[in-house]
Amino acid sequence: MDLRIREHADVLVDWSARVEPGDDVVVSVAEGAHELAVAVAEKLGERGANVVTTYASDEVSRAYLRAHDGDFETADHELALYENADSVLFLGGGRNTFATADVPGETRQAASRANEAVREARLDTDWVSTVHPTRSLAQQAGMSVEQYREFVYDAVLRDWEALAEEMAKMKEVLDEGSEVRLRKGDGTDLSMSIEGRTAVNSAASVAYDSHNLPSGEVFTAPYDPEGEVFFDVPMTLSGTRVRNVHLTFEGGEVVDYAAETGEDALGDILDTDEGARRLGELGIGMNRGIDRFTDNILFDEKMGDTVHLAVGRAYDSCLPEDEDGNSSAVHADMITDVSEDSRLEVDGDVVQRDGTFRWEDGFEE
Amino acid sequence: MDLRIREHADVLVDWSARVEPGDDVVVSVAEGAHELAVAVAEKLGERGANVVTTYASDEVSRAYLRAHDGDFETADHELALYENADSVLFLGGGRNTFATADVPGETRQAASRANEAVREARLDTDWVSTVHPTRSLAQQAGMSVEQYREFVYDAVLRDWEALAEEMAKMKEVLDEGSEVRLRKGDGTDLSMSIEGRTAVNSAASVAYDSHNLPSGEVFTAPYDPEGEVFFDVPMTLSGTRVRNVHLTFEGGEVVDYAAETGEDALGDILDTDEGARRLGELGIGMNRGIDRFTDNILFDEKMGDTVHLAVGRAYDSCLPEDEDGNSSAVHADMITDVSEDSRLEVDGDVVQRDGTFRWEDGFEE
Repeated sequence: MDLRIREHADVLVDWSARVEPGDDVVVSVAEGAHELAVAVAEKLGERGANVVTTYASDEVSRAYLRAHDGDFETADHELALYENADSVLFLGGGRNTFATADVPGETRQAASRANEAVREARLDTDWVSTVHPTRSLAQQAGMSVEQYREFVYDAVLRDWEALAEEMAKMKEVLDEGSEVRLRKGDGTDLSMSIEGRTAVNSAASVAYDSHNLPSGEVFTAPYDPEGEVFFDVPMTLSGTRVRNVHLTFEGGEVVDYAAETGEDALGDILDTDEGARRLGELGIGMNRGIDRFTDNILFDEKMGDTVHLAVGRAYDSCLPEDEDGNSSAVHADMITDVSEDSRLEVDGDVVQRDGTFRWEDGFEE
Repeated sequence: MDLRIREHADVLVDWSARVEPGDDVVVSVAEGAHELAVAVAEKLGERGANVVTTYASDEVSRAYLRAHDGDFETADHELALYENADSVLFLGGGRNTFATADVPGETRQAASRANEAVREARLDTDWVSTVHPTRSLAQQAGMSVEQYREFVYDAVLRDWEALAEEMAKMKEVLDEGSEVRLRKGDGTDLSMSIEGRTAVNSAASVAYDSHNLPSGEVFTAPYDPEGEVFFDVPMTLSGTRVRNVHLTFEGGEVVDYAAETGEDALGDILDTDEGARRLGELGIGMNRGIDRFTDNILFDEKMGDTVHLAVGRAYDSCLPEDEDGNSSAVHADMITDVSEDSRLEVDGDVVQRDGTFRWEDGFEE
């Protein structure tokens, strides 16, 4: 076994999920994640956890969903499983990213509605999502499988403690700040308020309220954006590839939009509901192990020296307890490269210039 | 997909497990059983059942068990899953029949003890075990995978309703009879009492209290055997290949034994405890879709025109409610071919001669 698979399992169980002896753990194994499942099982055995392994096969789901008449109900045995679980480890890594492409949308939605109690029970656990580098994901990323393995392990096998400390600096700046302004040589100049909002140090661990491995971003819930922004990192929105998006905000809302590719898909998202034209998230990507776009949001939005903004729903963890953030049925992340010719300012002070943070060598005010 | 996989799923869900709309079903998928899992999921979707799919990987189990310190406890989340399940479908078919060969015996036993409540909860459901024909099982059977597929589907895709009716005749004979005598040209002449015992028509359906697909045997719990018997079908006892066993019974117990191969393993079993030298089961194999030994007890003991006897534990289902049958830590099945030069008599009447039952064409009194 590739030693890095064992290291991945160590990070997942120790740093991310913080599994303790006697914990009841569910390990969800995608079709291509067998090897990671073996390494995780070894680690969980060592730890003295109790394990149920579920098979998260897209092909099994597709067959089930397509054959069903659509009148779904909550599965009591599944609910009981998750209500009694301490942690759920999702080992992604399928064999075909389009394996469920021919399941009708209304069937998915009906199943998803019936599954809400199960989903909530799962979110109530110390859950963590990660992926095993399969050929299918390599293909999605446009890489050979060897290349893709390097890419995944560069992103996952970080010094998370050091990165968490660095991200804590960014969180402090955002927590204490009132206004963020992003400027880039491409014409981007966007200001937004973050007054009263709390940033999340997403350090790939449940101890940081962070449930993705890899992670490596600091995010908050901005509001009242004004100005314009270009997103130069490609993205997939609702299954459509979208490139070079340009948004103009006035009065806190998108008043104009354009995209070189996928403009219709972008328009559909912005027209979903009222909240879809307002901002839900500002995220600062700080995982420099991720240095390229792979069409997988688990990685893309954490890429070092990028900033992402999402239109739509805001995360509760960024809001004061008595306040509701922007609400919407959508949450669409769009990413912009800030490694060159860029400035990120908080209350007029430059925090990151041309991809270098204030606390790093080579930073120029 | 091979159409027979879908037919297998149909038999499993409809005939064997009798799954109904709204049932909470657990599908346990072995490493090599993916295709059958897809077909079963389709069938369960059609039926409107609620499904949790578990991954029964021997390699995952091995890693977990070997890493564990041996102080196992009951997994509450696993218990909750099965306590809330109506049916459990075990789709066997691994990729290496020796995948757990290097898990220490004491670790297995400790895990098995801690797992007892879960096992009981599973046995309380309408559970059914079957196998998908994998290369590994083909290898165990000494066949090419194509050959083995033919073999498995010949055994599984029967007219179960017709076979259940035929087996009902055998059950009636055994239920009404007092004494069974088996004679063969090889010197076998064994008599045993079945007075007061009830035979099980094991017709591969929970409706018949039968939990294996394939099945196709009628079995009861005999006692007070006298005489001798040769077992000419090879078998594996405690992991050891055993051939051509000869047992001599006096006063209801084995008083002498011999085997051409594996005599020590046989001796160890007979010396396990007091009950290990008494009979626990007499089974009449009636599935003529199974015509050869494949070193897999799921198939071997149901082979048409064979009779098997087990030393050790008797099944409760064959006993009057107020009576305990033979008790033992072991239950070791041994099989003898009755297709030629043989007679099976109940109370002096011949029921089967040279592989032909009394109710079949060509039967000679």
